[in-house]
Amino acid sequence: MTSMIERSAKMVASKDVEIIVKNPETGPEAIESFMDENVSTINVIKEVIRPTLGKVDAVVIACFDDPGMYALREILDIPVLGIGESSVLMSLVLGWKFSILAVSEKAIPLMENMLYRYGLEKRLASIESMKLSVVDVDKMSEEEVLKPLIKAGEQARMKGAEVLILGCAGLAGYDEKLSKKINLPVIDPVKAGVKLAESILQMGLTISRAGLFSKLVHSEW
Amino acid sequence: MTSMIERSAKMVASKDVEIIVKNPETGPEAIESFMDENVSTINVIKEVIRPTLGKVDAVVIACFDDPGMYALREILDIPVLGIGESSVLMSLVLGWKFSILAVSEKAIPLMENMLYRYGLEKRLASIESMKLSVVDVDKMSEEEVLKPLIKAGEQARMKGAEVLILGCAGLAGYDEKLSKKINLPVIDPVKAGVKLAESILQMGLTISRAGLFSKLVHSEW
Amino acid sequence: MTSMIERSAKMVASKDVEIIVKNPETGPEAIESFMDENVSTINVIKEVIRPTLGKVDAVVIACFDDPGMYALREILDIPVLGIGESSVLMSLVLGWKFSILAVSEKAIPLMENMLYRYGLEKRLASIESMKLSVVDVDKMSEEEVLKPLIKAGEQARMKGAEVLILGCAGLAGYDEKLSKKINLPVIDPVKAGVKLAESILQMGLTISRAGLFSKLVHSEW
Amino acid sequence: MTSMIERSAKMVASKDVEIIVKNPETGPEAIESFMDENVSTINVIKEVIRPTLGKVDAVVIACFDDPGMYALREILDIPVLGIGESSVLMSLVLGWKFSILAVSEKAIPLMENMLYRYGLEKRLASIESMKLSVVDVDKMSEEEVLKPLIKAGEQARMKGAEVLILGCAGLAGYDEKLSKKINLPVIDPVKAGVKLAESILQMGLTISRAGLFSKLVHSEW
Amino acid sequence: MTSMIERSAKMVASKDVEIIVKNPETGPEAIESFMDENVSTINVIKEVIRPTLGKVDAVVIACFDDPGMYALREILDIPVLGIGESSVLMSLVLGWKFSILAVSEKAIPLMENMLYRYGLEKRLASIESMKLSVVDVDKMSEEEVLKPLIKAGEQARMKGAEVLILGCAGLAGYDEKLSKKINLPVIDPVKAGVKLAESILQMGLTISRAGLFSKLVHSEW
Amino acid sequence: MTSMIERSAKMVASKDVEIIVKNPETGPEAIESFMDENVSTINVIKEVIRPTLGKVDAVVIACFDDPGMYALREILDIPVLGIGESSVLMSLVLGWKFSILAVSEKAIPLMENMLYRYGLEKRLASIESMKLSVVDVDKMSEEEVLKPLIKAGEQARMKGAEVLILGCAGLAGYDEKLSKKINLPVIDPVKAGVKLAESILQMGLTISRAGLFSKLVHSEW
Repeated sequence: MTSMIERSAKMVASKDVEIIVKNPETGPEAIESFMDENVSTINVIKEVIRPTLGKVDAVVIACFDDPGMYALREILDIPVLGIGESSVLMSLVLGWKFSILAVSEKAIPLMENMLYRYGLEKRLASIESMKLSVVDVDKMSEEEVLKPLIKAGEQARMKGAEVLILGCAGLAGYDEKLSKKINLPVIDPVKAGVKLAESILQMGLTISRAGLFSKLVHSEW
Repeated sequence: MTSMIERSAKMVASKDVEIIVKNPETGPEAIESFMDENVSTINVIKEVIRPTLGKVDAVVIACFDDPGMYALREILDIPVLGIGESSVLMSLVLGWKFSILAVSEKAIPLMENMLYRYGLEKRLASIESMKLSVVDVDKMSEEEVLKPLIKAGEQARMKGAEVLILGCAGLAGYDEKLSKKINLPVIDPVKAGVKLAESILQMGLTISRAGLFSKLVHSEW
Repeated sequence: MTSMIERSAKMVASKDVEIIVKNPETGPEAIESFMDENVSTINVIKEVIRPTLGKVDAVVIACFDDPGMYALREILDIPVLGIGESSVLMSLVLGWKFSILAVSEKAIPLMENMLYRYGLEKRLASIESMKLSVVDVDKMSEEEVLKPLIKAGEQARMKGAEVLILGCAGLAGYDEKLSKKINLPVIDPVKAGVKLAESILQMGLTISRAGLFSKLVHSEW
Repeated sequence: MTSMIERSAKMVASKDVEIIVKNPETGPEAIESFMDENVSTINVIKEVIRPTLGKVDAVVIACFDDPGMYALREILDIPVLGIGESSVLMSLVLGWKFSILAVSEKAIPLMENMLYRYGLEKRLASIESMKLSVVDVDKMSEEEVLKPLIKAGEQARMKGAEVLILGCAGLAGYDEKLSKKINLPVIDPVKAGVKLAESILQMGLTISRAGLFSKLVHSEW
Repeated sequence: MTSMIERSAKMVASKDVEIIVKNPETGPEAIESFMDENVSTINVIKEVIRPTLGKVDAVVIACFDDPGMYALREILDIPVLGIGESSVLMSLVLGWKFSILAVSEKAIPLMENMLYRYGLEKRLASIESMKLSVVDVDKMSEEEVLKPLIKAGEQARMKGAEVLILGCAGLAGYDEKLSKKINLPVIDPVKAGVKLAESILQMGLTISRAGLFSKLVHSEW
Repeated sequence: MTSMIERSAKMVASKDVEIIVKNPETGPEAIESFMDENVSTINVIKEVIRPTLGKVDAVVIACFDDPGMYALREILDIPVLGIGESSVLMSLVLGWKFSILAVSEKAIPLMENMLYRYGLEKRLASIESMKLSVVDVDKMSEEEVLKPLIKAGEQARMKGAEVLILGCAGLAGYDEKLSKKINLPVIDPVKAGVKLAESILQMGLTISRAGLFSKLVHSEW
């Protein structure tokens, strides 16, 4: 999965931007639950964030559930983007209603819960599931992945989706193929995260230290 | 803080219910950020959940931010209550609008974010802050705590609050004193969590395995 | 119907709690409309509330529409619970989305209207109807009731329900049977009302006299 | 109060429309609570609705809380308008945000609860209170009423109100005076109810018998 | 189309009200897009508003998308009604949920967007499309129009609609026929606009000059 | 104003991106009303869009009200960004609540109306006004502009704003100065629009032709 993420990221990155894609050595095979999000956040901080501290200008969390996004925004002094949030925001300038194409059935309520949390559910057409696990997707051929993905996309379209979002980093790279089949714009969330990170940096912006991400943190990390 | 939590819990527990109050040895001094929530959840699982597995009938997370509540619901087969969620639900049968009296200013957006996530913001009058840290509160005398608490309560009342919620486990036990001063019902969140846990148990109910808390968990714990 | 309500209530009541189940002599055969709610409220006050005044510690209105709940909260100095509101609140700690299984088709908009009023519609998956009248249900055998109830539950599950709520006091006692068939937690609203009433009492709480339930009442009763 | 209501109603009624203003003999002095709403609804049905059945073409409930509006819509075959609902709807074509000027402080949550129920809270600027009882207003001179009314209107304006609604039938007739003082459109709710009733009639429309107001009523009346 | 609009308007107008129906000579054949709305607004101002300035007491924009409604409210000193907004408001006193029957598929998101803008989406059951263009409808026979209209109405009813709104001025006059077939109240938007305009006038009300429609306009017209 | 817009745009544009800033010759001095939006849209299409057709890759509408954004999305086959929408989206990754600092008081309801339309009002802290006209701002010195801007920013901060948005293209370039004074991230909307346009282009995305922006346009342009 990491190589697909890397390819998507580099495909859209500006020339003068260096992309470093890192996966923690330890941790769950995939992130599909709140438990996985918790464990991964700790691992990512130890194995990815700490070693690169001061060496990178922004962090893009390449998992659609945006695990640890809020925590990292608290402790880091550089922009932290989640690919879930980023892709939803980008979808809003391309059409009225968006749908997320998720891998597992569990992801349907999980992503709806996430959208409620972000206050971004009002433009949601639907969340569709491929009825698989992320672990499966990683082992399947392109064709095997495309079939249920197209089906999910068609269901979304019937429910009013005007823009589709690939709801998993493991689906990075399927945007163009799906778009051709379905004839709707399809957002690769990794690309959305990278471009939004670049934009924030080039605008000279940083995370607000007032309110939600203020630095009242008691934990060592 | 743990002793006050224990006292509140035991004060309302039914006679045939045994209350075990446990705090992990390691971890942050207080939980006031997403980072703290993440770290604490891991510690609580290791030091509190694992050793008591199979020996308790329900779990009440005695921190108002409900850290790890969703993760624990995924991995445990017993009811898991958060005192934040529990107290908001209980407030709704006592009046139209509730306010949460929080300790820190950071807690204001943090709790609003939590209410959005729960879809429970529609009856919120306000979140008021004592402009302190939980660490301070733990060291202050009763009188020193009551003063900013009453001030926060009065602000809430002016904004339409009909019921007040103590927005921190560290405020457990202040419900009656504040209620007398302010003349509004005041909810001790620890008590709310304990009573709701008992209720769920006596009704023979368990966490739904469909949807948000289904057991698609890849992490070991 | 009254006997089933009594059985459910007593099944979950704490040992030291005495349950008194009372139905007014006069009034409509069932409560399925706003008109019925109005008439019943007056009858309940005359025939049930007045005679027991000072002799009970809390009131649970055992009709899912919560008829007269707001009016009783204004005039009584003890907690007043409605089984509709209580069961919705309890469902929220067991899963993300709940569905209500109602008896009549009219109940669908009626309960949605009620949820809007309570500000509690955001976690609703659906309201399903058995397409019957409460009067029918009272005369049908257990098996005859279960069949449309299971069908309604299956429709709810397909629409994302993680927790089911029996949307009528006349369905009290069907929780376990339905839960086994559908494999989702099912809430008996009478049980929810009783446990929430006990909880409020044991926490020493009362209805707020500020705001919505303040005692500006001109009517004699 | 009845005479002021009559004057307002007749002032806007079309020439070919006869206005009959009726107050039940029995019942509370004023309607300021849910309890009052319940009692009044029964009295209105007995003393006003039944005697005029078949003799009127529409009913306008001249109390801002719209007591019994839903029940009357169930049992009658003619349009039933509430002056609260009617005036909110009319305000929406005159500006972006409206405020309601209520008599008592209790009316603030009561009317907000009503707007939630109607799904009409999104354009609300504020509900302001004159901090009086309806009973007082009925005994006060025009000047005595205008003073707190203007103050409430000024507060509303500061909170973004573009249109003001008189939140009590007892304020009928104060619309022009207040409008001149505050320089905002002011809606007399009695006038709004009468005009909307006429409009519905002239369009040949009736209450829908599907859904919320379907005739599943068990009560005799 | 103009003749049908005229017939509907005159059918409900009060005797002492003169209806003038005017269509600009130039402009798009139909208004089904934001682009069409923009162009038409300019044409309407030039060819309809300017020549009648000072000669009419109110303006009703007889296109369901309410093109130019906000702009006209800024520049005119008389009430300006849109038939889309007017019919939605009127539907709310006849049932709980309304559906709009639109001509084109594009109208579905367009009208939902409009309802979001008005803050009036909470009572929407659905927007159904006849899958035609307004240009087609204008050329079709009554029977040809009725068939897809009835089908759309039936779909709406299945989704909980209690009141139907004809979502196009080109459907003016079909209200009674559809109502008879579907057995639900059907609102002709032209009639709704006319009656609401009359009501506002007879109540002596005008557009608020505070806030959204204040006269900070730099354009000449 | 145009020169400030140009400077902001070029400051953040990627090296390989050419920025063309064009203002129509005819039209209102400033855009502060719906009427102005309508007139400007027509002028922009004639004088800016038509002459550059096929020569640009994306359009950024440099007016905070996003005039004509929906119409241009219908007729053009390239991404069309509005700086109002763009800056709100960007603010959401930097903090929990945003405030918009507007020039005129009329802009307060106008922008709130815009946020309702976009379904993006849930994270709004407040809209603050400098109580000026855009025409004034254009003639004032930097210091004269900064004073009321800082005051508005301070009011926003007190209401919970964590990120500030400059609510007018005429304020382009004031982001850094204000940010230093207020110590919050400040978004220059022109920069946000340019970066989002670049991002959409580099991701190979286009406006969806399904739904809201489908090409059912009857007007010539």
